[in-house]
Amino acid sequence: MLITLDEIETPAPVVDLDVLERNVARMAAAARERGVHLRPHAKTHKTAAIGRLQIAAGAHGLCVAKVGEAEAFADAGFDDLFVAYPIVGADKARRLLALADRARLMVGVDSVEGAASLAGVFSAAGRTLDVRLKIDVGLHRVGVAPERALELAERVAAMAGLRLRGVFTHAGQAYGEPTPEGVAAVAGDEGRILVETGARLRAAGIPVEDVSVGSTPTARQALRVDGVTECRPGNYVFNDGSQVALGTCGPEDCALTLVATVVSVPAADRAVVDAGSKTLSSDPLRPREGGYGQVRGRATRLSRLSEEHGVMAVAPGESFRVGERVRILPNHACVVSNLHDRLLAVRGDSVEAEWPVIARGRVQ
Amino acid sequence: MLITLDEIETPAPVVDLDVLERNVARMAAAARERGVHLRPHAKTHKTAAIGRLQIAAGAHGLCVAKVGEAEAFADAGFDDLFVAYPIVGADKARRLLALADRARLMVGVDSVEGAASLAGVFSAAGRTLDVRLKIDVGLHRVGVAPERALELAERVAAMAGLRLRGVFTHAGQAYGEPTPEGVAAVAGDEGRILVETGARLRAAGIPVEDVSVGSTPTARQALRVDGVTECRPGNYVFNDGSQVALGTCGPEDCALTLVATVVSVPAADRAVVDAGSKTLSSDPLRPREGGYGQVRGRATRLSRLSEEHGVMAVAPGESFRVGERVRILPNHACVVSNLHDRLLAVRGDSVEAEWPVIARGRVQ
Repeated sequence: MLITLDEIETPAPVVDLDVLERNVARMAAAARERGVHLRPHAKTHKTAAIGRLQIAAGAHGLCVAKVGEAEAFADAGFDDLFVAYPIVGADKARRLLALADRARLMVGVDSVEGAASLAGVFSAAGRTLDVRLKIDVGLHRVGVAPERALELAERVAAMAGLRLRGVFTHAGQAYGEPTPEGVAAVAGDEGRILVETGARLRAAGIPVEDVSVGSTPTARQALRVDGVTECRPGNYVFNDGSQVALGTCGPEDCALTLVATVVSVPAADRAVVDAGSKTLSSDPLRPREGGYGQVRGRATRLSRLSEEHGVMAVAPGESFRVGERVRILPNHACVVSNLHDRLLAVRGDSVEAEWPVIARGRVQ
Repeated sequence: MLITLDEIETPAPVVDLDVLERNVARMAAAARERGVHLRPHAKTHKTAAIGRLQIAAGAHGLCVAKVGEAEAFADAGFDDLFVAYPIVGADKARRLLALADRARLMVGVDSVEGAASLAGVFSAAGRTLDVRLKIDVGLHRVGVAPERALELAERVAAMAGLRLRGVFTHAGQAYGEPTPEGVAAVAGDEGRILVETGARLRAAGIPVEDVSVGSTPTARQALRVDGVTECRPGNYVFNDGSQVALGTCGPEDCALTLVATVVSVPAADRAVVDAGSKTLSSDPLRPREGGYGQVRGRATRLSRLSEEHGVMAVAPGESFRVGERVRILPNHACVVSNLHDRLLAVRGDSVEAEWPVIARGRVQ
């Protein structure tokens, strides 16, 4: 494609290739330096081309959140996939069984019932599924508490059809930390608690090979904790307004923006763009509220969204005219890609490629 | 399909056909009784089958929010479409010009610049596009203030390539009203201000034929205001948690739910389902905060979401087990359909049809 950003229709998600490539290279280098395997979370981009960039930079497979995402990436030729989610039920287990013929597969577990539903299908087929135990290091979402991990690990390790390979966690509570120091403390805890939990399981005879941490805000620190073997950040390929607010990166490190058109300027302090919650999502800025997107190069933010409208609270001294284009830095990049059929890859002002979002709509 | 709800994979959006049909019939009857045209907003469902139900019940065409939605519905055979959005730019105008060959088309305008960008393309082609002027009756999003409507109307009416057919509005501020009385007051204002604005334009010689109100909370009252000719509610086909909270309907009138599976029960007061913000959206409950979805038949609500996790704050006296299925009433149905490739149409426990969400991803 030989078109420029001025020629694309709006709203459109665009990925700055220079920034993307730099983000991919930096995280790969940080992991390589420590001898830790990088397994990027592909839920952020759901895009085969970006997954291939990550693998080319040295990533050891990809991480996904859904069986449907694993299937989409396997269809695209990826052969080492970790479904970092407590998968439950025979239906999903049968799909995993089919997938296991064409990819090295691992799955999360955090309950006896969930693990048993996978074990039943795999053992009946005479197969073994690699699983990792999800440990809760403070997010209090899913995962077993560290002090209860051994009991669960022993029960899972005893199930025919499963092989317990290790432990993993996601310190998503970092997104609520108001200061970089707070984020750093979470990252330290993430690595330490997970390594300690792995050591306790090993001491009890469970062969824990993988100690896998995750999350973009904590990644660079958590992967430096001795004993961590793998890191699974996702957002870092794009970064977003929340990463900037958390101090994880600067605005210049954000690769994904939305190109939008000003469609209405009803008042001096209000202008409206053609990007709303069906384009940007209504995810809030983290760690504290701050509107629904930042207009790049301006002080103006989107102050409210409806489905197809982004209402800008025009900052003092700024103005917008109908028909003008703006680029919006979203609060949360991982949900933006999921709202679009394709991402436009741009270098400077030139559109170099159109990337299908392959796993979009794979909610199951 | 001869499967039951117990056999579908989760998470899955399901539409209760009995409730849907009743909602469609009731709104059609309310409009018919007053001799007002009903033009349902199809952005809510983006589903040809539901659009056909609405037309069969007497709807006069459909309303859409994007040119891409208009194209998708025209592809599905719908031939009377109003794009209720201030469309801006020659690219979009050219797509509208192509669409005008296969559908009766109307488009919103709220600025001289926007209108001129449409007029240029249509007049150059020797064609005329029907437009309606968007009036702001208090939402303060897009639309011209009533006192400035005549000036804009005269300029638009003078543009070659456009025919100004009428006025329209959307009283979305109703979603912020804490009481049914507040919603009723908004509905009354919506009809009254729009009818008065239309009358002022007519008195100045502008042939205003259409006076079109919208929004599900205000529809039944606003369409009863003398002088209103059309009503464009969207959400009413499904209803949702916010409509219940606003008093627009009861829980028994909600047609769209998400079937989800409990994947983790890490604590007595916390259970997690496989439906998160990529399934339910992170849209808040309106008119006041109240979590991210209500578990049907239980007091438990979803208290927080991440992309693939819905965290339930388990209500006192209730409990959930891993593998159990729940049905979740979403806060905002219009954004849920947009997150899925298909909706399952069910009667009782039987899945009768699988409906593609045809305009999903048509963000432009």
